[in-house]
Amino acid sequence: MHAFDRAIALEPCGGNRFAGHTSAAYANMVGPYGGITAAQAMQAVLQHPERQGDPVSLTINFAAAIADGPFDVEARPARTNRSTQHWVIEVRQKGETVLTGTAFTALRRETWSLDEEAMPAVPPPKDVPAGGPPIPMAWVQQYEMRPIVGAMPMVWDGSGDSSLTQQWVRDNPPRPLDFASLTALADVFFPRVFVRRATMVPVGTVTMTVYFHADQSQLAASGGGYLLAQARAQAFRNGYFDHTAQLWNEAGVLLVTTHQVVYYKS
Amino acid sequence: MHAFDRAIALEPCGGNRFAGHTSAAYANMVGPYGGITAAQAMQAVLQHPERQGDPVSLTINFAAAIADGPFDVEARPARTNRSTQHWVIEVRQKGETVLTGTAFTALRRETWSLDEEAMPAVPPPKDVPAGGPPIPMAWVQQYEMRPIVGAMPMVWDGSGDSSLTQQWVRDNPPRPLDFASLTALADVFFPRVFVRRATMVPVGTVTMTVYFHADQSQLAASGGGYLLAQARAQAFRNGYFDHTAQLWNEAGVLLVTTHQVVYYKS
Repeated sequence: MHAFDRAIALEPCGGNRFAGHTSAAYANMVGPYGGITAAQAMQAVLQHPERQGDPVSLTINFAAAIADGPFDVEARPARTNRSTQHWVIEVRQKGETVLTGTAFTALRRETWSLDEEAMPAVPPPKDVPAGGPPIPMAWVQQYEMRPIVGAMPMVWDGSGDSSLTQQWVRDNPPRPLDFASLTALADVFFPRVFVRRATMVPVGTVTMTVYFHADQSQLAASGGGYLLAQARAQAFRNGYFDHTAQLWNEAGVLLVTTHQVVYYKS
Repeated sequence: MHAFDRAIALEPCGGNRFAGHTSAAYANMVGPYGGITAAQAMQAVLQHPERQGDPVSLTINFAAAIADGPFDVEARPARTNRSTQHWVIEVRQKGETVLTGTAFTALRRETWSLDEEAMPAVPPPKDVPAGGPPIPMAWVQQYEMRPIVGAMPMVWDGSGDSSLTQQWVRDNPPRPLDFASLTALADVFFPRVFVRRATMVPVGTVTMTVYFHADQSQLAASGGGYLLAQARAQAFRNGYFDHTAQLWNEAGVLLVTTHQVVYYKS
């Protein structure tokens, strides 16, 4: 069993409630990697017996530090329409809210479609050396990263001039892409403030939104291949910065667009 | 009293509940302009006696068509930390959920700051003719729009080749900018699918996220001036497209970055 599947396993507790446990394999500096927490929240919706359709959007707010150990997820279908459904999500530890969120699922029909944001011209994965950042966190080992530009700085000399990162990435070992793993991959970026400033400051994601453009057939076509993951900050302002990001599969299909706000101290 | 202030007025009903009413001044083709609904939801947080800090992020999901008439807003502080607060929002009509959402407020401190997404070079507002689209919806009259590129098509001949819109915009008549009006302005874009295709199809926003980079002093500095509002779609895929957007004030300060997913039929 892949470490990712172990990490997102939830036990149904009846109604809208599910029980989960943090995963040592996806530990971050303090508490879990945010992407795995987001995937666990998404998984409660995916696993819900009343779910209708596939994820189109997900917003996750990290309300408090998540302690290593058990947690409860509540995923409530707040509104079910003919072909769409709106979810309200809350994760609690010891009765306290540590995460809030919402999701939108829908039955999708084939329509006129077009990717306006084309995949940037980059070398293929085989021509980009694997090179995770020299940091010891467990979660980093769960991904194979091949940075093209904007890798984690090796020298912290305040020298950055752009927050743009482009990297090939996939689960390590490879695992067929699904909505849960795509959710986790949407958070695979190191803090933009590190890249922009080559300066290490305390940081923490406070909110993250994922828009799923991929449907089941495009996930299947992506399989265990690499995704091109691109992120760039738009503004750093008084303690919070945002980033806007995209993930394409190797064939150049835009699978996800995603945004987040990150707290930083300086 | 400005029509906007009348539209967002909520009556406290005790606890986390507020009563509001849709506004004829901000009516859309069917039901209200999404931006005014988002502002009403934000206003419940802004007006809540337990609120701590200013908005940093807001996500609103439009779960069902909103009927003209009264509605209830519940804004619950799900988690209050030392200087941050997480909110869960739900709007109901006749007991049914029509909107879900979350917000994050925080006390901001001055830090190293930088706008990475610079305002594009465009002519100043006085050199751009006012030109709202030739459409009869009431809400359009509440804004002064000066489109630079990507205006609403005048001829629906399927000829578009980009979804990019850049326009100067402000309340009509002008009104000093605040978090509520900035929330409404974040939805001021016509559907990207109209601009990209010059083809009219049924559409409806399903989810919208707003990141507030501006603090109170930057809102005050913006006053009743114009904002440069820019939006572009990233992907149109099987019934849903996203857009990513930015709003700068006339001085070029990035006030908001915002994203949404819109349903379209074709």
